Amino acid sequence: MKAVILLSGGLDSSTVLYQAKADGYECHPISFDYQQRHRRELRSALLMASKAGVAEHQIINFDLRQWGGSALTDDKIDLPQERSLDEMSQNIPTTYVPARNTIFLSFALGYAEAIAAERVYIGVNALDYSGYPDCRPDYIQAMQEVFRLGTKQGREGQPITIVAPLIDLKKAEIIQLGNQLGVPWDLTWSCYAGDDVACGVCDSCRLRLAAFAELGLKDPLPYRE
Amino acid sequence: MKAVILLSGGLDSSTVLYQAKADGYECHPISFDYQQRHRRELRSALLMASKAGVAEHQIINFDLRQWGGSALTDDKIDLPQERSLDEMSQNIPTTYVPARNTIFLSFALGYAEAIAAERVYIGVNALDYSGYPDCRPDYIQAMQEVFRLGTKQGREGQPITIVAPLIDLKKAEIIQLGNQLGVPWDLTWSCYAGDDVACGVCDSCRLRLAAFAELGLKDPLPYRE
Repeated sequence: MKAVILLSGGLDSSTVLYQAKADGYECHPISFDYQQRHRRELRSALLMASKAGVAEHQIINFDLRQWGGSALTDDKIDLPQERSLDEMSQNIPTTYVPARNTIFLSFALGYAEAIAAERVYIGVNALDYSGYPDCRPDYIQAMQEVFRLGTKQGREGQPITIVAPLIDLKKAEIIQLGNQLGVPWDLTWSCYAGDDVACGVCDSCRLRLAAFAELGLKDPLPYRE
Repeated sequence: MKAVILLSGGLDSSTVLYQAKADGYECHPISFDYQQRHRRELRSALLMASKAGVAEHQIINFDLRQWGGSALTDDKIDLPQERSLDEMSQNIPTTYVPARNTIFLSFALGYAEAIAAERVYIGVNALDYSGYPDCRPDYIQAMQEVFRLGTKQGREGQPITIVAPLIDLKKAEIIQLGNQLGVPWDLTWSCYAGDDVACGVCDSCRLRLAAFAELGLKDPLPYRE
């Protein structure tokens, strides 16, 4: 049994990779170099895939800077910094990348159908304050319908299933799950800022640090501030 | 008013580009170099966009040969040749590319949201014998739901609308429509074979030639056979 796993190299997707492995699947992670500000995360994705002992790891390259529209794909748009968890929960932030998860899931669907995989795992999370529209349960349901209707496998046999095991978990709960699964946190990368040391002040660093702190644990990554 | 148009450079998508223009939209076509066997079509897409006088033309590059799974992305899979229209209507053919339209529409969605476009035009056609699952009305409806739920624009305002003006037309009717709209057929490209002269025997050439013949018209493209 094969599964495709969307793997960014962050906390969430790394936990999902280990979950897929624990579920008994032969793991085929897929990662994306879309010229994101934090391309550093790809190094973590490669290390994580290697550490987990996956069957094959696909890296897909394209350039979302061609139209930008996000702080992660346009250097002229500032990255939100030093926001409280409360501030993060207000609006869809400028780190939202138009249609990113739809693009990622589409490639995962193509890969899954080509290798006859049963599942596509994705580490979306509706409770992590980000407010991204393409991380919510109704969106995942809509994509599931596309998986069913948009493929030969879905029309003629058993549709490929989207599995989103973290969708209802808080960040601290994800860390607890990852600890049970043995995820090597020191190999992960969450920072949006694009440097070689995590900034500690972007939304992604703040969420991560707050969750480790909530559990009384120390994040093994070094931080600049 | 802006519209994004999926433009391969073939008969259908070129007609759709001219339709979007006739509908009064500022046109932003998007084309894909996915290492398809018939990359020659991109030259037609460029010429067509230029001829139609578009606002901007995006070419997105990625490599679907990484996993293949189609006669268009894996040279080891033979291209169907010399099939009758009846044979073409039997099954989903080997030229089906896993999740291709889902990938294309996802990029179009991201581009449309980034430039605040109202519509995405796509030249899918449910009656052209191909049997592709991702060309049928129920699939387009499912993607429309993704457009609504998967974007900031869809959640907070008016969702970007998918327009598929050819979905119920026969190939000959598409040519009639294109003639009314003034589509320069000599700039289009349909052949799957990957050579610089159209083969005349792949499914795509056969469908096209049959439709011109049905109308008593001559296809202005040269053919090898």
